[in-house]
Amino acid sequence: MRCGSINLPINPHHPSIPFPFSKESKTERRDNSNMDPSRIKPPPMKDLTIENITENVIRTNSLCEDERMKYVLERLVTHLHDFARETRLSSSEWMAGLKFLTEVGQICTDVRQEFILLSDVLGLSLLVDSIDHPKPKGSTEGTVLGPFHTHEAEEINHGGRMSHDPRGEPLLVVCTLKDTTGSPIEGAKIDIWETDSTGHYDVQHAERNGPDGRCVLRSSHDGVFWFRAITPVPYPIPHDGPVGKLLGKLHRHAYRPSHMHFMFEKEGYDHLITYFPPPPPFFLALRKALALYLRNDPFETSDAVFGVKNSLLVDIGKAGPDYARKYGVAEDHALLAYDFVLVSEAETRELRAQNSRIALDRLGRKVKIVNGLPVPDLD
Amino acid sequence: MRCGSINLPINPHHPSIPFPFSKESKTERRDNSNMDPSRIKPPPMKDLTIENITENVIRTNSLCEDERMKYVLERLVTHLHDFARETRLSSSEWMAGLKFLTEVGQICTDVRQEFILLSDVLGLSLLVDSIDHPKPKGSTEGTVLGPFHTHEAEEINHGGRMSHDPRGEPLLVVCTLKDTTGSPIEGAKIDIWETDSTGHYDVQHAERNGPDGRCVLRSSHDGVFWFRAITPVPYPIPHDGPVGKLLGKLHRHAYRPSHMHFMFEKEGYDHLITYFPPPPPFFLALRKALALYLRNDPFETSDAVFGVKNSLLVDIGKAGPDYARKYGVAEDHALLAYDFVLVSEAETRELRAQNSRIALDRLGRKVKIVNGLPVPDLD
Repeated sequence: MRCGSINLPINPHHPSIPFPFSKESKTERRDNSNMDPSRIKPPPMKDLTIENITENVIRTNSLCEDERMKYVLERLVTHLHDFARETRLSSSEWMAGLKFLTEVGQICTDVRQEFILLSDVLGLSLLVDSIDHPKPKGSTEGTVLGPFHTHEAEEINHGGRMSHDPRGEPLLVVCTLKDTTGSPIEGAKIDIWETDSTGHYDVQHAERNGPDGRCVLRSSHDGVFWFRAITPVPYPIPHDGPVGKLLGKLHRHAYRPSHMHFMFEKEGYDHLITYFPPPPPFFLALRKALALYLRNDPFETSDAVFGVKNSLLVDIGKAGPDYARKYGVAEDHALLAYDFVLVSEAETRELRAQNSRIALDRLGRKVKIVNGLPVPDLD
Repeated sequence: MRCGSINLPINPHHPSIPFPFSKESKTERRDNSNMDPSRIKPPPMKDLTIENITENVIRTNSLCEDERMKYVLERLVTHLHDFARETRLSSSEWMAGLKFLTEVGQICTDVRQEFILLSDVLGLSLLVDSIDHPKPKGSTEGTVLGPFHTHEAEEINHGGRMSHDPRGEPLLVVCTLKDTTGSPIEGAKIDIWETDSTGHYDVQHAERNGPDGRCVLRSSHDGVFWFRAITPVPYPIPHDGPVGKLLGKLHRHAYRPSHMHFMFEKEGYDHLITYFPPPPPFFLALRKALALYLRNDPFETSDAVFGVKNSLLVDIGKAGPDYARKYGVAEDHALLAYDFVLVSEAETRELRAQNSRIALDRLGRKVKIVNGLPVPDLD
């Protein structure tokens, strides 16, 4: 039976009436071909119980043609159901959870991404970054990107000023960028951002005049890049929304230790994913992101978003005679010096594949790598 | 150091300046006492890795004073992280996932709850209902509530009409309500709702005039309740949003088999949870909800939301001479007859506690039951 150009099943109780047939429903219910019930032959479910619902959902999803998506959904459904079974999740807890997730979604705007924040405070963001950007010994580790990167930073020359907050403590930052063999990396695009001295990023000020506390630089032939910033300060993540309420219930503070963000882009190095199709601002691009954290910060061991790694801890020192002369500052000027080591895309890919094999081996599954990501090998 | 009435840590890099100190930040960043960083002594994190991040997040959440919440969060974080580790979740997949969840939240309105829909199509809703409302042998099983229950149905007398759709096939519904010993349950409040003949609930029509396809009844002294409805038809769940897109990618149809919803309320029986504080309409109350499904429906074994259970399948028959005489219909009038068996609250509570012990035993955890729900017994 046909209804317009859509195949619709016959209503068994009104064999003469295809459904839906009302005017407004034609548009709102137009199935795309992937969902046309007359074409899909879903594997029949068994009588559903607490124990067999998982395999039934996985079987129902098994017509998906994207092997990777099918595997991700299989693990998602398994863990979601195991979570409910192990906690004996009650209906009212389930409703409270869905209400919470709804609020997280509804507070999101073009300049606020509460789901990233939720992922951050649950340690998921750091975990995913660590999985996606595995680091061979001796290379600089990644960390959480955070929601405050923007694409409006001005490109500055070496020695330029990236923060204009008069209340910030002036800080000279001198870095090198090398590969894992110790060779300098020239011409990498480096994005740097930090808060002002009150712990706010520029985008958090409603009345700001253009970008501040952020810049873009290029590494020179010897891998060096240097600029003038202010000494970072700790600050709380936005906690006036549902994620903040969650932290309160968990008796957790919302503070991040003092840090400065860096993001590197250079073809052939690690991992540059441009997200397509164009998503909202926070989703614009994924690049190798990291941050340096000030040692002995009061929140060094209790970062609200689990971003600190020992290898990313730095000391703020004094410039001393050599740096003072070379960079034109006083000898007691605050100095942050750090040597970054970037991993090549090839090294990262290989390490990722190796880790994938180990992880699926633990599940007792044979693995094949498709587009750099693991799927079970069923052959 | 004090800033207004809030204790704030000293900025180690500007010891004389408490932070945040800017005017607008005072309000927006007021910590509640649970989050005051000067009062919380979080357990220090170790250097975070792919393997130890989970125990670190669990330890950070361990100051939570609600034992049940702490346990639920522990299992949530464990499964969330295991999911990422087992799939080797990539940053772009993580972003796609967060973007999807954001869209799910943002399409929710007072009359649309996409997160319930998501839970439904992943089989979570049925699982949680089955866990929360365990059924001893011989009692009627529960199933998914769905998002279309409202509180505006009119109370009707036995024999009254709950659907006024002239295109629907008139259906006589005659039911009994008994407890597990076979005694009739008198005076239970019964909510019943179904779609019109086009597969739409009343609330899905923008221009509707009051409720239709729904009613409230009370069971009589012999446990009987009967009314006039229309024969249910299959219909697709709303699939013009992110959940519909997901179904399309999974090559799943969106249809539910023909069914009629029932919800029972009677003190002492199963489980009546009133959600507090008052949530949006879909979250208004949780009661024992179930539905009867027509046998041989084209979607009987492929319900988009996994609601069908064998014990809830019914046949539409003919009234025949006895029913025709007793209920004043023609002998060939369509008839649905069903005997419901409700479980007492005490039986449900006991069965739930027993199932909780088995589930936590599997995890190697000793259990205690607090407010009807399991938490690990650490003593």
